[in-house]
Amino acid sequence: MKNIAIAAFALAATALPAAAQQLKPEDQIHLRQSTMALVGYNFGILAAMAQEKRPFEKAEAERAAEILPKLAALPGRFFGEGTEKGGNTKAKPEIWKNMDDFRKKLEAMQQQVAMLPQAAGDLASLKKQVSETGKACKSCHDDYRAK
Amino acid sequence: MKNIAIAAFALAATALPAAAQQLKPEDQIHLRQSTMALVGYNFGILAAMAQEKRPFEKAEAERAAEILPKLAALPGRFFGEGTEKGGNTKAKPEIWKNMDDFRKKLEAMQQQVAMLPQAAGDLASLKKQVSETGKACKSCHDDYRAK
Repeated sequence: MKNIAIAAFALAATALPAAAQQLKPEDQIHLRQSTMALVGYNFGILAAMAQEKRPFEKAEAERAAEILPKLAALPGRFFGEGTEKGGNTKAKPEIWKNMDDFRKKLEAMQQQVAMLPQAAGDLASLKKQVSETGKACKSCHDDYRAK
Repeated sequence: MKNIAIAAFALAATALPAAAQQLKPEDQIHLRQSTMALVGYNFGILAAMAQEKRPFEKAEAERAAEILPKLAALPGRFFGEGTEKGGNTKAKPEIWKNMDDFRKKLEAMQQQVAMLPQAAGDLASLKKQVSETGKACKSCHDDYRAK
């Protein structure tokens, strides 16, 4: 991971390692955990607004809603071979035994997340879509994420 | 962090902790590191294409370019009080001594990153904008990130 970040930023003149193309298992795990941390942060903001734990702010709701589909597209890239263990992963081994079902649940989540931006403009729509999206998250986590 | 993620995903019925609004220093550090990991991943893809270390693929270039402005908007949120130390941070103490300059450099980076999506459609434009963006990244890292 360190190598990727350094390469990406110090790129002005120097060469980029092949790691940017073929990610090591530990880098994949780090990237999927990083992705989920940002999904949690942004979805957490929407959830707090939906539950009236914080005031609804349209601009912030739209910002959070708009990054989420782009984040949701990523984790599916980072469950490659050799990523079943390491980095305190909470990913259950069942993922690799039921990859088709796992991918189906990822896609169901992505479909719900894709509807967040258009729902973020008013609180009533947001509440509904946050609830639907939360169910899709939960459906996958129940089966494939350790507590 | 764990609390945020759990709350965000298990939200269907239960309450969300106030952590979603007031982030603990360790959660801020985790979120800024997660953000930078994803910035590195996505910018690394563009940099590899720009340097012809991997083939230019328009759809993938546009995907990476489009998430980057949304990611670049985030790290500035996570340098709050008490986040100078912990989590193996590479953030230098100079950030908090020169916060105005740090913010100015963050904004300069955001301005360059904002031009990536329109540059990602062809390789010549991408090369130019990746180079400009890389300089903006480097300018901030040189002063404010430990090696």
